[in-house]
Amino acid sequence: MNKNRLEAFSDGVIAIIITIMVLELKVPHEPEFSALVEKLPTFLSYVVSFIYVGIYWNNHHHLLHTSKRVNGAILWANLHLLFWLSLLPFATGWMGENHFAPATTAFYGIILLFAALAFNILQIKIIKEHGKEESTLAKAVGSGIKEKISLSCYFVGIPLSYFVNQWFGIALFVLPAFMWFIPDRRIEREIMKEDE
Amino acid sequence: MNKNRLEAFSDGVIAIIITIMVLELKVPHEPEFSALVEKLPTFLSYVVSFIYVGIYWNNHHHLLHTSKRVNGAILWANLHLLFWLSLLPFATGWMGENHFAPATTAFYGIILLFAALAFNILQIKIIKEHGKEESTLAKAVGSGIKEKISLSCYFVGIPLSYFVNQWFGIALFVLPAFMWFIPDRRIEREIMKEDE
Amino acid sequence: MNKNRLEAFSDGVIAIIITIMVLELKVPHEPEFSALVEKLPTFLSYVVSFIYVGIYWNNHHHLLHTSKRVNGAILWANLHLLFWLSLLPFATGWMGENHFAPATTAFYGIILLFAALAFNILQIKIIKEHGKEESTLAKAVGSGIKEKISLSCYFVGIPLSYFVNQWFGIALFVLPAFMWFIPDRRIEREIMKEDE
Amino acid sequence: MNKNRLEAFSDGVIAIIITIMVLELKVPHEPEFSALVEKLPTFLSYVVSFIYVGIYWNNHHHLLHTSKRVNGAILWANLHLLFWLSLLPFATGWMGENHFAPATTAFYGIILLFAALAFNILQIKIIKEHGKEESTLAKAVGSGIKEKISLSCYFVGIPLSYFVNQWFGIALFVLPAFMWFIPDRRIEREIMKEDE
Repeated sequence: MNKNRLEAFSDGVIAIIITIMVLELKVPHEPEFSALVEKLPTFLSYVVSFIYVGIYWNNHHHLLHTSKRVNGAILWANLHLLFWLSLLPFATGWMGENHFAPATTAFYGIILLFAALAFNILQIKIIKEHGKEESTLAKAVGSGIKEKISLSCYFVGIPLSYFVNQWFGIALFVLPAFMWFIPDRRIEREIMKEDE
Repeated sequence: MNKNRLEAFSDGVIAIIITIMVLELKVPHEPEFSALVEKLPTFLSYVVSFIYVGIYWNNHHHLLHTSKRVNGAILWANLHLLFWLSLLPFATGWMGENHFAPATTAFYGIILLFAALAFNILQIKIIKEHGKEESTLAKAVGSGIKEKISLSCYFVGIPLSYFVNQWFGIALFVLPAFMWFIPDRRIEREIMKEDE
Repeated sequence: MNKNRLEAFSDGVIAIIITIMVLELKVPHEPEFSALVEKLPTFLSYVVSFIYVGIYWNNHHHLLHTSKRVNGAILWANLHLLFWLSLLPFATGWMGENHFAPATTAFYGIILLFAALAFNILQIKIIKEHGKEESTLAKAVGSGIKEKISLSCYFVGIPLSYFVNQWFGIALFVLPAFMWFIPDRRIEREIMKEDE
Repeated sequence: MNKNRLEAFSDGVIAIIITIMVLELKVPHEPEFSALVEKLPTFLSYVVSFIYVGIYWNNHHHLLHTSKRVNGAILWANLHLLFWLSLLPFATGWMGENHFAPATTAFYGIILLFAALAFNILQIKIIKEHGKEESTLAKAVGSGIKEKISLSCYFVGIPLSYFVNQWFGIALFVLPAFMWFIPDRRIEREIMKEDE
């Protein structure tokens, strides 16, 4: 299995996900600005998801960049990640249409959680294939502090959204986005070290 | 006709199929988890189809990898395969929305059957173009035992779904997925032999 | 402007067109085979359009293969062709849903006609850029007999569909598909001559 | 981050945007030409948007062509541009379905305005990364007269559409399209100078 083809296929799927998400933003029938105001929650949820998919695309590229070989396990770990990302338009639409109702916000967090777990599994599979010693990725990830914070945010945010107040959950779901917004410096640093 | 362009186009179509399938998972209007429970059959059918498309993408890559030349027959055999795969979102949505009703499950099997036949035709056309003697693929496929088992599963599963019980059919439709889950080792083995 | 990028972009758009067309095949609500029978005209129109888009993809590749340079006119002639092809899902859905009603069949022919004209314009622009003398394409197309027959079929088929009987029109719309089914041999022959 | 991958991803997203826009052109139920007449405004808005996306694709290519390096800021400026372009199908559908009602036309202009601003930001980020002295783009853009005219058209057209008459607005929104229709000659000229 060719790494480039895996990358191209993933890019294709991610490009489609980020674009069809806008189809959940249904065109209102009334030709007044007030009709748009009702769409505001759907729009906001679209913005958050757009940024999240952008982050995943970006970090996915960094992840695969460190990978020299691709095996069956990496291939399916990658499809597994794409699977959870493909559910993001659904979760986004449900949350937006229902104005961030508790259950829909919690569900959005669940999808984010599974996508994050899938990303971690993919990371583990790539490290395993290359051996912990020689893996650029293993050195870059280190103790995985960013991964642990993100997962904690989702773990805490999901019950908080449902049982306490959804806005606490949303705050916790947006937090990791800020943290990952900048492409993973750790990986870039390790790649540059390798090149020296 | 360039092999790379055939591959890139197929990848594009498969990436779109795997992603638009999620559009059949319509966003429920009620903001309660109970609304998601109703979506469970659609979700499950989506999972099965996602895995199936993933398998086809994967094996399609292996198939074309063995191909050195592309002619008109291969080109149309490839489009023929994409045609049946493109009907998978429709079949998935119908089966999921109707909670695996017998007719819908049988129809899902019919689409899987035609996709499998199309894959076999593509295999035959590639072997024919390269000559049985020099074809890596011909040696890899051998007696085609995996192909025969898959086709048998679909052939038996379709009437079983409709006339007896759909769950027998579903079991028979999921079986080949397990068998093909791991990329075709036979082809990998032959490619490696060639390289030696 | 890079030829490869024009090709890749066109491939992307064509891959999406051929795939979203299936979205017009709406999932029926009844879980019976009889519900599929009602979908038969939509399915048939989907088959015809799938083959047509496949033919355009194929011949588009041949066309660009002969092109060494790309200028602004070629770029827009190419987008113009993609524009008419992008209306094919709409025309297909309208014709299929209305069981080949005269007006819808005539409209389908109109879209085919404009796509064919756009293809001819693209051909002319490529020949012009390369100069009639040195153009591989100009020699390959020659008197353009296949183009003339296709256009005539559409020109005759459109009024026939609307004023006489839509089945005459459909026969005339399917005819060029048979003629173009095999990738343009004339171009292949000229490319091979060049290579000698 | 690789420039080619940024380009390929952007191409993918733009190809999807230009194609899913046609999904807003809903298939009418009546099989008469009169049903198409009602679709005319939606069709016209589709034509304008198709041309706009074509222009952006074209100029986006020119823009990235001048770029030698890609950093995080360029990456997000690029996603920011894609974000506003992804809202074009929504704005197009709303304007078309409501027959160019004032609010919908003004909103269409707002999306065009934000897309144009995003394009300018991307330009600035690319120039900044390469340093004003050595930047091909900085020399090409010069005083940015075309950018200033476009932005002015949108700025004036938006209130005009809403408070006076939407057709003034539409005229002002179509004007920049004519101006940008031809790929940015300034950039081409500078690239050629560099090559000398």
